[in-house]
Amino acid sequence: MTRGEAAKKREEHEVEFSRIVAFSDGVFAIAITLLVLNLHIPKELHGESVGAALWHERESLLAYGISFAVIGRYWLIHHRLFGEVTGFDSRLLGLNLFYLAWVVLVPFSSEVIGDHGSETGGIVIYAVNLAVVAVLGWVMAADAHRAGLTRLRSEDEREYRYRAFFVALVFTASIPVSFVAPSVAPFLWLALFLDPVERFGVGRAERSTG
Amino acid sequence: MTRGEAAKKREEHEVEFSRIVAFSDGVFAIAITLLVLNLHIPKELHGESVGAALWHERESLLAYGISFAVIGRYWLIHHRLFGEVTGFDSRLLGLNLFYLAWVVLVPFSSEVIGDHGSETGGIVIYAVNLAVVAVLGWVMAADAHRAGLTRLRSEDEREYRYRAFFVALVFTASIPVSFVAPSVAPFLWLALFLDPVERFGVGRAERSTG
Amino acid sequence: MTRGEAAKKREEHEVEFSRIVAFSDGVFAIAITLLVLNLHIPKELHGESVGAALWHERESLLAYGISFAVIGRYWLIHHRLFGEVTGFDSRLLGLNLFYLAWVVLVPFSSEVIGDHGSETGGIVIYAVNLAVVAVLGWVMAADAHRAGLTRLRSEDEREYRYRAFFVALVFTASIPVSFVAPSVAPFLWLALFLDPVERFGVGRAERSTG
Amino acid sequence: MTRGEAAKKREEHEVEFSRIVAFSDGVFAIAITLLVLNLHIPKELHGESVGAALWHERESLLAYGISFAVIGRYWLIHHRLFGEVTGFDSRLLGLNLFYLAWVVLVPFSSEVIGDHGSETGGIVIYAVNLAVVAVLGWVMAADAHRAGLTRLRSEDEREYRYRAFFVALVFTASIPVSFVAPSVAPFLWLALFLDPVERFGVGRAERSTG
Repeated sequence: MTRGEAAKKREEHEVEFSRIVAFSDGVFAIAITLLVLNLHIPKELHGESVGAALWHERESLLAYGISFAVIGRYWLIHHRLFGEVTGFDSRLLGLNLFYLAWVVLVPFSSEVIGDHGSETGGIVIYAVNLAVVAVLGWVMAADAHRAGLTRLRSEDEREYRYRAFFVALVFTASIPVSFVAPSVAPFLWLALFLDPVERFGVGRAERSTG
Repeated sequence: MTRGEAAKKREEHEVEFSRIVAFSDGVFAIAITLLVLNLHIPKELHGESVGAALWHERESLLAYGISFAVIGRYWLIHHRLFGEVTGFDSRLLGLNLFYLAWVVLVPFSSEVIGDHGSETGGIVIYAVNLAVVAVLGWVMAADAHRAGLTRLRSEDEREYRYRAFFVALVFTASIPVSFVAPSVAPFLWLALFLDPVERFGVGRAERSTG
Repeated sequence: MTRGEAAKKREEHEVEFSRIVAFSDGVFAIAITLLVLNLHIPKELHGESVGAALWHERESLLAYGISFAVIGRYWLIHHRLFGEVTGFDSRLLGLNLFYLAWVVLVPFSSEVIGDHGSETGGIVIYAVNLAVVAVLGWVMAADAHRAGLTRLRSEDEREYRYRAFFVALVFTASIPVSFVAPSVAPFLWLALFLDPVERFGVGRAERSTG
Repeated sequence: MTRGEAAKKREEHEVEFSRIVAFSDGVFAIAITLLVLNLHIPKELHGESVGAALWHERESLLAYGISFAVIGRYWLIHHRLFGEVTGFDSRLLGLNLFYLAWVVLVPFSSEVIGDHGSETGGIVIYAVNLAVVAVLGWVMAADAHRAGLTRLRSEDEREYRYRAFFVALVFTASIPVSFVAPSVAPFLWLALFLDPVERFGVGRAERSTG
């Protein structure tokens, strides 16, 4: 019996399946909302104005914006993947949990880079965390695809892989740069706004809607 | 192919659609609940009574009440909007995420105004945050309406716009006031309890139930 | 047109209705989970053992247990009420939000009583908060019942009222006691384990399952 | 009338039932996500590098990993149990709430063991918390099974019991060890990666999919 045959069919276990999705959504929603706890203006300002205190928080605010965008994007990808999932087994559930464990770390990394964004160590922690999420997202998609648990066509799966590789590449590339020029490294992340599939047609499937 | 035709139809993707709604609800629910973390009575009171310590927290308690009411109201509006949505595409999802990023900031702004409510800077941060949420809510509604992704009639859309403009106006108007008389500015927000559509019939649609 | 006729019917707006319920559940779930943030053992113990530090936290642990049980019980009551709701309007939504605003305060009150459980002020804050939740829960049930928005029979509604009054009474009664003998007042709350309807048949409806 | 007959049938109260499940999932999702709040790198490092500060957090990171895995596993078990539940009454709801109260304590215990992992007291708190969750999970399953509220066959129930006993045994066994050799005790928990049912066929039901 193959994994695909042994797996629980989604249509026969709709309640159980939607619980997995709801749990994942809950974790994403909480992780993205906890980002706000990294923002603080001290109660005692010692003569400083509130505006000046906000200006001191600019790196944390920037980290909030980037992390919200990145978690949001990962959520959209997760959302699209599970929209195509047709069956699940304990391995997919295990991979999903492992993936979520790295998503939940983002508020921590985001706090670190907000406080230490100009230091190599801060950038490395953040970049490693987000690269791992991208790679694990792809591993989950590829594993489910290979096991016959998705409706993904091979071209779709390839598109996934290219996208995940691109995100992981951007974050990984910033690591060596952070050792040489820590203040430059975060600017590399702007490349994330490019979409290699949309822009260069790399590994493009013919699907029209996404 | 227009955006409306390219978008995923809600009735064909009910599970995916309800995930978007559930994720948004989760973010709203967490943001509204995190407001409580801004309330504290110190463990060590140095001879002060608990009642006196609570009295010192009165501005934070007020901020809690206002922020809870405002997030709650925004949630009701979001709730009503998505009740009329008939399709979704990546642009609506993106706008929704951007909108939520500003909703999640409210616990931060609320902490700031609880601690610095009598200073210009504290009032400006709070007013800007809430005005942006109101405007973005309207942008999302208008954009979805124009793209044919909602069942909203033009009159309903106009009602939306008036309401959002009114909320944004109240918060924006308090900003210049806060430079002249910071202690007066928050009282302007009481105007939010007026509903321009209900009260003055501005841009009123003939709909009977809401 | 009566309120009951003007309200949205639940069966026609199942998605919208389940969003309200899901949002309320989310708020309950987050509020009950945030209780854990009130528990702390310092990182630096200055020679004290971990066990001794836990013993110093005993009042906070007790507050955690009581608050978890009380929020859990309120959730069950909310759960049962909304299981009988057949329609909703903006007034029910508004009351529900106001009710939730007081539920969300419980982690704050719980922290206060954990730190100041032997002082009058700490007990009053906690007792007032929980009495208000009980009363608001009943107001919401009674209002929905009167407007014809529930399937509740009059006997059921009476049962609700007795239960809510009993909980509110227990908490209210502990307030004057806390002025005379603060260390005795919390013991009155043990009376909550009595169920006036089950035990004394006060206002008992003939319903067999609950 | 037996408990099974008096209980509400799941298929007749699908909305109410799914609320219980959604509430439980929410609590699990929040508890697992709050684990990240135990991780911190100070803002002021006094000349220390970020990497060195992360190294000082290694015990907290390890505690994060273990706790995420354990809560995740408990969630999977809860998930599977409620997939087989066919009816519910107030006793099952009460047990579920009591069970969740111990799940929500895990972020606290996890913080304690992250800070005091080499001391007997820290290990005991963590081990007791997780053993209690395992035992309560089994009590809930057994009670529901006995009352005829599940589709579980007796063999499945036996499998449940063996798994829960094994987890509880591992945590309980580490307690005496922690008094003699606190640094060794946590290594016993690696035994959790063994699955007594899969590995040794103890109490194995003939079911093929899990």
